[in-house]
Amino acid sequence: MALKTVEEYLESIRDNREVYLDGKKVEDVTAEPKLKKMVKYACADYAIAQDPRFRDLSTETLPGGERVHFVFVPPKSVEDLMRRREIIKLSARIGFGLPGGAKFTGIDGINGVALAAKRIDRKLGTDYSARLEKFRKHCMDIDAAVSLCMTDVKGNRALHPHRQQGHQDYYLRIVSSNDDGIVIRGAKVHISNTAVAHEMVVLPCRAMRKEDKDYAVACAVPANAKGVKIIGNAGDGMHPMVVFDDVFVPTERVFLAGEWAYAAEMPYMFSTYHRLSADTYKYTELELMVGAAGLLAEYNGLEKVSHICDKLAWLVMYAEGTEALGKAAVQNCEFDEESGYAYPNTIYSNVAKFFFANQYHEAEKILQDIAGGLVSTLPSMAELNNPATNEYIRKYLGINEEITAEMRMRLFRYIQKLCAYHSGNITVHAEGSLAAQRLTLYRMADWDRYKALAKRACGIDTEHPEVLALPNLIDAPVKVT
Amino acid sequence: MALKTVEEYLESIRDNREVYLDGKKVEDVTAEPKLKKMVKYACADYAIAQDPRFRDLSTETLPGGERVHFVFVPPKSVEDLMRRREIIKLSARIGFGLPGGAKFTGIDGINGVALAAKRIDRKLGTDYSARLEKFRKHCMDIDAAVSLCMTDVKGNRALHPHRQQGHQDYYLRIVSSNDDGIVIRGAKVHISNTAVAHEMVVLPCRAMRKEDKDYAVACAVPANAKGVKIIGNAGDGMHPMVVFDDVFVPTERVFLAGEWAYAAEMPYMFSTYHRLSADTYKYTELELMVGAAGLLAEYNGLEKVSHICDKLAWLVMYAEGTEALGKAAVQNCEFDEESGYAYPNTIYSNVAKFFFANQYHEAEKILQDIAGGLVSTLPSMAELNNPATNEYIRKYLGINEEITAEMRMRLFRYIQKLCAYHSGNITVHAEGSLAAQRLTLYRMADWDRYKALAKRACGIDTEHPEVLALPNLIDAPVKVT
Amino acid sequence: MALKTVEEYLESIRDNREVYLDGKKVEDVTAEPKLKKMVKYACADYAIAQDPRFRDLSTETLPGGERVHFVFVPPKSVEDLMRRREIIKLSARIGFGLPGGAKFTGIDGINGVALAAKRIDRKLGTDYSARLEKFRKHCMDIDAAVSLCMTDVKGNRALHPHRQQGHQDYYLRIVSSNDDGIVIRGAKVHISNTAVAHEMVVLPCRAMRKEDKDYAVACAVPANAKGVKIIGNAGDGMHPMVVFDDVFVPTERVFLAGEWAYAAEMPYMFSTYHRLSADTYKYTELELMVGAAGLLAEYNGLEKVSHICDKLAWLVMYAEGTEALGKAAVQNCEFDEESGYAYPNTIYSNVAKFFFANQYHEAEKILQDIAGGLVSTLPSMAELNNPATNEYIRKYLGINEEITAEMRMRLFRYIQKLCAYHSGNITVHAEGSLAAQRLTLYRMADWDRYKALAKRACGIDTEHPEVLALPNLIDAPVKVT
Amino acid sequence: MALKTVEEYLESIRDNREVYLDGKKVEDVTAEPKLKKMVKYACADYAIAQDPRFRDLSTETLPGGERVHFVFVPPKSVEDLMRRREIIKLSARIGFGLPGGAKFTGIDGINGVALAAKRIDRKLGTDYSARLEKFRKHCMDIDAAVSLCMTDVKGNRALHPHRQQGHQDYYLRIVSSNDDGIVIRGAKVHISNTAVAHEMVVLPCRAMRKEDKDYAVACAVPANAKGVKIIGNAGDGMHPMVVFDDVFVPTERVFLAGEWAYAAEMPYMFSTYHRLSADTYKYTELELMVGAAGLLAEYNGLEKVSHICDKLAWLVMYAEGTEALGKAAVQNCEFDEESGYAYPNTIYSNVAKFFFANQYHEAEKILQDIAGGLVSTLPSMAELNNPATNEYIRKYLGINEEITAEMRMRLFRYIQKLCAYHSGNITVHAEGSLAAQRLTLYRMADWDRYKALAKRACGIDTEHPEVLALPNLIDAPVKVT
Repeated sequence: MALKTVEEYLESIRDNREVYLDGKKVEDVTAEPKLKKMVKYACADYAIAQDPRFRDLSTETLPGGERVHFVFVPPKSVEDLMRRREIIKLSARIGFGLPGGAKFTGIDGINGVALAAKRIDRKLGTDYSARLEKFRKHCMDIDAAVSLCMTDVKGNRALHPHRQQGHQDYYLRIVSSNDDGIVIRGAKVHISNTAVAHEMVVLPCRAMRKEDKDYAVACAVPANAKGVKIIGNAGDGMHPMVVFDDVFVPTERVFLAGEWAYAAEMPYMFSTYHRLSADTYKYTELELMVGAAGLLAEYNGLEKVSHICDKLAWLVMYAEGTEALGKAAVQNCEFDEESGYAYPNTIYSNVAKFFFANQYHEAEKILQDIAGGLVSTLPSMAELNNPATNEYIRKYLGINEEITAEMRMRLFRYIQKLCAYHSGNITVHAEGSLAAQRLTLYRMADWDRYKALAKRACGIDTEHPEVLALPNLIDAPVKVT
Repeated sequence: MALKTVEEYLESIRDNREVYLDGKKVEDVTAEPKLKKMVKYACADYAIAQDPRFRDLSTETLPGGERVHFVFVPPKSVEDLMRRREIIKLSARIGFGLPGGAKFTGIDGINGVALAAKRIDRKLGTDYSARLEKFRKHCMDIDAAVSLCMTDVKGNRALHPHRQQGHQDYYLRIVSSNDDGIVIRGAKVHISNTAVAHEMVVLPCRAMRKEDKDYAVACAVPANAKGVKIIGNAGDGMHPMVVFDDVFVPTERVFLAGEWAYAAEMPYMFSTYHRLSADTYKYTELELMVGAAGLLAEYNGLEKVSHICDKLAWLVMYAEGTEALGKAAVQNCEFDEESGYAYPNTIYSNVAKFFFANQYHEAEKILQDIAGGLVSTLPSMAELNNPATNEYIRKYLGINEEITAEMRMRLFRYIQKLCAYHSGNITVHAEGSLAAQRLTLYRMADWDRYKALAKRACGIDTEHPEVLALPNLIDAPVKVT
Repeated sequence: MALKTVEEYLESIRDNREVYLDGKKVEDVTAEPKLKKMVKYACADYAIAQDPRFRDLSTETLPGGERVHFVFVPPKSVEDLMRRREIIKLSARIGFGLPGGAKFTGIDGINGVALAAKRIDRKLGTDYSARLEKFRKHCMDIDAAVSLCMTDVKGNRALHPHRQQGHQDYYLRIVSSNDDGIVIRGAKVHISNTAVAHEMVVLPCRAMRKEDKDYAVACAVPANAKGVKIIGNAGDGMHPMVVFDDVFVPTERVFLAGEWAYAAEMPYMFSTYHRLSADTYKYTELELMVGAAGLLAEYNGLEKVSHICDKLAWLVMYAEGTEALGKAAVQNCEFDEESGYAYPNTIYSNVAKFFFANQYHEAEKILQDIAGGLVSTLPSMAELNNPATNEYIRKYLGINEEITAEMRMRLFRYIQKLCAYHSGNITVHAEGSLAAQRLTLYRMADWDRYKALAKRACGIDTEHPEVLALPNLIDAPVKVT
Repeated sequence: MALKTVEEYLESIRDNREVYLDGKKVEDVTAEPKLKKMVKYACADYAIAQDPRFRDLSTETLPGGERVHFVFVPPKSVEDLMRRREIIKLSARIGFGLPGGAKFTGIDGINGVALAAKRIDRKLGTDYSARLEKFRKHCMDIDAAVSLCMTDVKGNRALHPHRQQGHQDYYLRIVSSNDDGIVIRGAKVHISNTAVAHEMVVLPCRAMRKEDKDYAVACAVPANAKGVKIIGNAGDGMHPMVVFDDVFVPTERVFLAGEWAYAAEMPYMFSTYHRLSADTYKYTELELMVGAAGLLAEYNGLEKVSHICDKLAWLVMYAEGTEALGKAAVQNCEFDEESGYAYPNTIYSNVAKFFFANQYHEAEKILQDIAGGLVSTLPSMAELNNPATNEYIRKYLGINEEITAEMRMRLFRYIQKLCAYHSGNITVHAEGSLAAQRLTLYRMADWDRYKALAKRACGIDTEHPEVLALPNLIDAPVKVT
């Protein structure tokens, strides 16, 4: 069937899933007022795919004639990855800086697992790749909303999974298995949009040792599977903890089961895709930040002030640098030789994530610096309708006929939302912490080449072929004795 | 009478003041649930002064035998200023990083105006200083809660007060005057704790030109004076906009009225005192930030991780640097020759404010980096009482018997509050923006001396006496030809 | 003839040019020991073009069969710009982080003037573009070394060119003109490699007003023209001041003469090309910095230290981010519609320059932090040959048989050179200061779009087409009343 | 005798010491041209003490009537430490930002060892303290120039002293001992001014384990002792490596010999004193930096440019913050109970060092940003005397009659020297690297108190007395259930 309408989608997730929020069970996720935001973000993906203006961009007709969401199609070229970026940017522009909630993270999980599975199959002769592609087909068929479960609760982070104290379930693990499938137990956190997803892709979150082999598990689980409990985060419930209380997973949905030496491959490939997705939607958030800063300068009469212009320029640099680095990760992408899968340039996608996450608090500081204290001390917008205060508000908070009190109050209120706590923390941690990017960059760097070039400059011998190819036309900085 | 009990204080502010919040009039500020936080912070100052453990620190017996709050006594020594710091720190430690709400800002206004008035009197032969001291005595007598009104709404910031478009009231001004007093009109913003104050000290917020002379006005106004409208900021109402709708101020309460050339003196001296007060309470907030970070490392099992230790050390540097700079501003304070008033070292108190405000977002980043994503995605604490989820929460979010899920959830919840939007913005803007500190530092710097020392190093002649006194024992970096 | 050999090139610049260094006239630039470095960097470009391994990359056969240096060919595609990058990187890798000295900056001048001239011709009907292309052909014919003269000495920077005090020549200007040509007077600074160039491309360095029209001048001048005096900077003479003491320029070499409104176009287009060239060679310098840091960690036994790995990762991020942004500026380049000229994406090339220049001092700090104090206090390498100390040096400064004292000393000595004063200053100022990038970013930013997106989030009306095209699927952050 | 004249001092160091520089032996350090700078800095200390204007500040009459240099007197009060600061500042202002070379570091060594020795004696019953005080008296008697040897060459930094490979002397150690004394072997680096010192105070540079006990050694050694080889750093020789090739040290000069558990005490107490000394002279360097920046703005006509003023303000903040933190470390100093010795506040002196060292590269960037490219591309000052170029130079590099070309050239030349490589590296590493300050801050922080305050805010129980003393007047941020 493929391509669901919004209504079909909503109907499809009224399926007795076990969801909790703020201490209570949610009987129907589509009806719970606190979950309305999440539901809208999920519906947005379906609405966009149905919209004639966006259909060509966001959907694709398969050779068999079936129309599916484009993001399910395996990426094979720069153009495919770039189109994925455009789809994310469209939904995130619609969503005020946040991408649609039905497919954003899950797809990166599918593609990440697909690539990792291919590599594992090649080495071990397993058939994980085939299982994954079958699951991919299933997702196309039901036009699935897919979420991604990676981060374990971890317990004491100084200890390996099998060394944890108190109990053995701080990392999700296989508690039993037979020919039909496996039973898994554990809890994953930060599992965005799961309460409105059909499927969850489950991955390990770290490298494993031999003793941790029961923790080397990847699979796909329906959100309404028996034993799955989705405990929403306080407030909007969009990023729940998901408990797997002895959940059975049939063999055809298992993509890793004990091959501990390859556990890291999956989060690694997922992250490569997902850091780029993050960079992509982040640009749409940063556009808003730049725009809000520009409006602030305009609405405060500060557009000619040199240090304000400097700060606005910095924000442009920050936003456009994020976009440029994201594009570079695609335009210089890498290819899996055998399958032809395209994946973002690992170094560049990590640079892109680090670039925006590491400087986000600086951007907030600049925005708040331009904004002035009123952003914190703004009277309620309800005063605009209070006959006793309304005139004062209009008189004193407006600037002139063009820039009214209401416009400024709206802008100040928006700045508050832009800089809410959540933003900074999410920016640093979503799609992997700064430490994760540093680690990847350190590991992936071509140290041999870097060092060989430095040795040449020092007059220290090196056999590196790239260095040997350089003619000696210029005196080395440190002379050879 | 002096020294009010908490009950006497609460009774004293039920006085028909005109307060608005979230679009509605507040009939009794002491009874409005949304204002409870502000009321508690104001009461704290009275409770502390009554507490036998803190009475010696926070109160003083006047020569006439009357016991008054110490902060009303004019500071005359390093010890006086240091004791002011200790009083602020005590109330701010009690208040989880925020000082008591009855006297914090207003006192700096009284002392700032006092010093500025002395200088003006000396030059112009006015008697503002005597009026101010009489007002000070009145505040002692009623054990007043005092707030401070400085920041005007400003309209178009690129324009001078008298050049504003639309209306002439973007900066508070004198609209008429006679022998009995003056009538003022305008609106001030960020006027902390005014809804529970007895008195407001009103100051100009900038230097004025001759054409702006009606805007050069300072005075004291009761919070319940006719024409005063206090419009609370959305939420807790602690930092309202205060409208002066043609408020009459009797002559004895007027401290500046048209002497435009001296307008800047008042905000300048107020800021000198208040930046130090800010630095003082900020230390108690930073103690909590350091402590929370230390607990995070402990509760996440990260205490031995090198980059975490580095970050904790940075936070210690940040907190203790703030305290050290604040102390330095007191220990190297300046004295008004004639009156003997002590005031903080201007350069150092600005360095202190800049130090903590400029690095606050970096500190938030570090805190969030250590915290991990759970701070954003934490389930509600209500799950601890939900029979359906409670066991999962305890099992998966606790680390061991010592560090339970509840403890970690409390800590994560606290981090959210510490890093709420308000903090960053308030830190940058309260007590003057970063630009204000830069401006002060630029203006107050001893450029003659700095440049003369540099000229000596360049071999360029200079007549500066400090440089002439230096013997030529070492070759100048740039040789004299 | 085209393509000169190194010997032909050297012979060609022994042409009675007037060059001064350290207070003395240089009779033969190719023989002056202090200028040896500059000469080698210029020769390198000729040697590379002759090298069979690099000929295909660095040269091109014209339709007429003539073989010319590729950089003279007008860039018309992403591939052309990318090849330009590869040529720069090759020569800069050979040159230890500095590109070859014969064509690096001048080419960007030719291409920048070419594009600006086209735009001016289109508007004014002038024939500057044809003159420029003729000059380009001349450069191909003589395989010219070309330098670029942009920055005027400026005098008092607060004053416009025609308002300068003392004399009128702080910016280069036309002092007279007739049908044959113009006579120019003034001085340009930072004119890299001019003492070994054949030709100089001369541009204005800023926007001009009507009264400044005599200063709106661009042209090409031979380095040995009468009246040209090249005064080398102290030391290596590579970045001289060039004085134009009433130099005659024939009409066919004049590319702008009084069209003040278009003066800014030339430095602007030159900068667009040149910031990318800068980003390109800077990557080869940063490779060396990363490599040197990696060697330091290895040679000091610090490779497993967590905070050292973090710093190395940061350096990788810095180097690879510079490369990625440079590539993005090419891969997303812009095209002049009429002529088909390709030029780097303006925003991205400025982001790239800002990215590396703004963080260079941080990189130096990190490098020095890893290096340890020995980099400053290293004994002379001559001690390795001193029988009295040689054994101590080998014993105490080596680590083991693999990492000898000599290797470490070479590395430390190299770090000194990498971090010499020149590097930081050059990095900040070459190819335009940070302020220049900020200004460009501020001016080129699509503020309408940014602001319109922010207005949508605030619930403020906007007619921007891109915003109108976004469906309302998600509630706006600030609700529309 | 005490107090030497400059001539007496020079005579006293012509004593057959074994000094090497740039591969050759130096026969007479007072006659070697390359060492002239070091000699002048050492002589300065003697000249100042003889100068009637500075004698009261820099010298003290002992109870017995003998006049000695004040810095030899044990510090017992805030005033003593502050006077030490004034003496350092005087000599460093004379020395263009560098303190005098005869006593600067050595005194901190004497005082650091004195305090550590007192603590060790108290615990172990040794008599090291008495030996040290006898040595102190000897230094007073001969008005000694004293240097300090702490940093070992370290070999592989990942290995403990006794685990080093190749040889056992990467850390200085006792190779034999008998009743008369000990014999030491090893090499120390960065030993400022040793070639012109009379005495060296030798300390371990790190904590030791039991197996490292031979490395736990502190003592005093004459610079001309047999077996001492001073190998100057390349260039000015001021910071040599000192080799101890089986040097005999008589028992009365030994201050630690095998008490491994106390090894860290000595570098720790030395650092506490020395980080403050560093902060002190650094202020005089930063005054020059601020002054040079101010002159640059003036000489470039940029004094009214907003972003330049911001940068100047930042430099003022940086310089005065360094001074304020240094003062705070003294004004809040600590006292050794038994001996009454005063020593700087450990936390604050580390904050001060970190503050200036961590931001130094930012200051350089700002200075270079203000300076413009001419600082790098300046013609030689010899052109001022070249008849062929001299007029051009004066015409184009001067601004007007007040600000001549020569003045600007002198200033630009000075900026080059201020930002030379050495400065940045020295600033980061001298007196302990940034990592050393972080470590000290992490270790010395009162974590119990910080954490207890955070627990109170979280509603988690704590028994900390300071927290128990705080009344519950305000609701805790996280409510107690």
